[in-house]
Amino acid sequence: MAIRLVENDSALVRIAVERWTAQGCMPCVDAVAEEAPVALEYNGISHAVMLATPADLEDFALGFSLSEGILQNPSELYDCEIVESCDGWRVAMTIASERFHGLKERRRNLTGRTGCGLCGAETLAQAIRRPAPTRGHVVFSSESLHAGMRAMAARQRLQRDTGATHAAAWMDADGAIRLVREDVGRHNALDKLIGAMASARMSFTDGAALITSRASYEMVQKAATMGIGLLAAISAPTGLAVRLAEESNVTLVGFVRERGHVVYSGSQRLAQAA
Amino acid sequence: MAIRLVENDSALVRIAVERWTAQGCMPCVDAVAEEAPVALEYNGISHAVMLATPADLEDFALGFSLSEGILQNPSELYDCEIVESCDGWRVAMTIASERFHGLKERRRNLTGRTGCGLCGAETLAQAIRRPAPTRGHVVFSSESLHAGMRAMAARQRLQRDTGATHAAAWMDADGAIRLVREDVGRHNALDKLIGAMASARMSFTDGAALITSRASYEMVQKAATMGIGLLAAISAPTGLAVRLAEESNVTLVGFVRERGHVVYSGSQRLAQAA
Repeated sequence: MAIRLVENDSALVRIAVERWTAQGCMPCVDAVAEEAPVALEYNGISHAVMLATPADLEDFALGFSLSEGILQNPSELYDCEIVESCDGWRVAMTIASERFHGLKERRRNLTGRTGCGLCGAETLAQAIRRPAPTRGHVVFSSESLHAGMRAMAARQRLQRDTGATHAAAWMDADGAIRLVREDVGRHNALDKLIGAMASARMSFTDGAALITSRASYEMVQKAATMGIGLLAAISAPTGLAVRLAEESNVTLVGFVRERGHVVYSGSQRLAQAA
Repeated sequence: MAIRLVENDSALVRIAVERWTAQGCMPCVDAVAEEAPVALEYNGISHAVMLATPADLEDFALGFSLSEGILQNPSELYDCEIVESCDGWRVAMTIASERFHGLKERRRNLTGRTGCGLCGAETLAQAIRRPAPTRGHVVFSSESLHAGMRAMAARQRLQRDTGATHAAAWMDADGAIRLVREDVGRHNALDKLIGAMASARMSFTDGAALITSRASYEMVQKAATMGIGLLAAISAPTGLAVRLAEESNVTLVGFVRERGHVVYSGSQRLAQAA
């Protein structure tokens, strides 16, 4: 069975597959989400390779740089060039020299070593960043949370076609969805959302981030770093995520599904029913 | 709302939460999967920090070392000491000097740099490993695949309690589940399964790996590295995963659900219905 490429754009590929059911095996065409190595470079130096859906890579680059604390604000990214190669994608960023100096200092501490899993951390002390507590005071109703989740679902184009991608969305206090980004990786979807918001100079304090995945430590860390006050997930949080949310004053809501949701921290941002 | 710890073991924590439904908000206790930074060290040198569920860490250490190609067989791991600290867990491994030399060579190429996302890769050329094609000839029936998925689901203890974890299981050709491992990370669950199998000196060629997640590139790469001939996932594969499966002669099956499944590569390992 050879892979037969039927159609290709950067975010999805259509291939010939066999669909097996009780009625037997039927050849058909399936849309599959694309995943590619994306190399992030700062001022000519390779920093990391992430596996990501190669769409909205400018958003991804800016969002990753901000949520990982490499940049402190979007104006520090001077240029972002995206080049496709046979192996994947290169994202060559030019950043402010002060930030590049900070990045080099971080990297010098890791001389001769390699890390993974936590964006370069290789010792326990480096692994955990503690963002400053968020300060947003916007309060959300249960209805707006659930309306936002439904509206996000309706806008997951890549997920509808492939069943393989996560989404992150930005919701106003009234439940209106302002932006949606998708990726095979849940962290990447959130980074793309953050980057798109930063590009559009949107405020991170007057709405909430919705995610279709679980809420792990890294998701809360990225949200807290950006000052996002409420993170709502369709699925479960982890213990470490709950503790970080509490420390960072992030309202963490999980299992946002038809019949209700569970609040793990920061319930002051949720309106009690009348 | 302060986090109140009700109960704790290394894999899950019970905390006080608020459950909101149409009937209002009710305080209750929720079981949450634990997630902790786990630092992997080889012969005294830090290699990487992964976020993982701190259970079955010996399996994780051995499985990661094998599936990432750091070790070529389990006997090259001489010792594995697991130490809990206030920041997380340290897994201090002692490995054969030949393998440690190989690891140092890989690391020397990355001097002064740091990587992430792909276990240390920071350039595109390093990102993609191409494992040798798998050689197993075992053929599986549709019935055994579906029976295996049901049996795995029945053994996901941590998932049943927390709703937050993935599982990886090893299935015989007749659909019997031999081993199950769970983790908040899908790669970690597969690495734990691989490590547990290697410890028990089980063959990687006479069964199949089942996973509760999507099948990304890294999942196929780990399976192929171990010579696993069939990888079956509850959810979707990515395009890169399908291409690697085809190149590595891994049978890749996705969307294994009640009514059927989809075969993306290697259909010679699936028995046609009589």
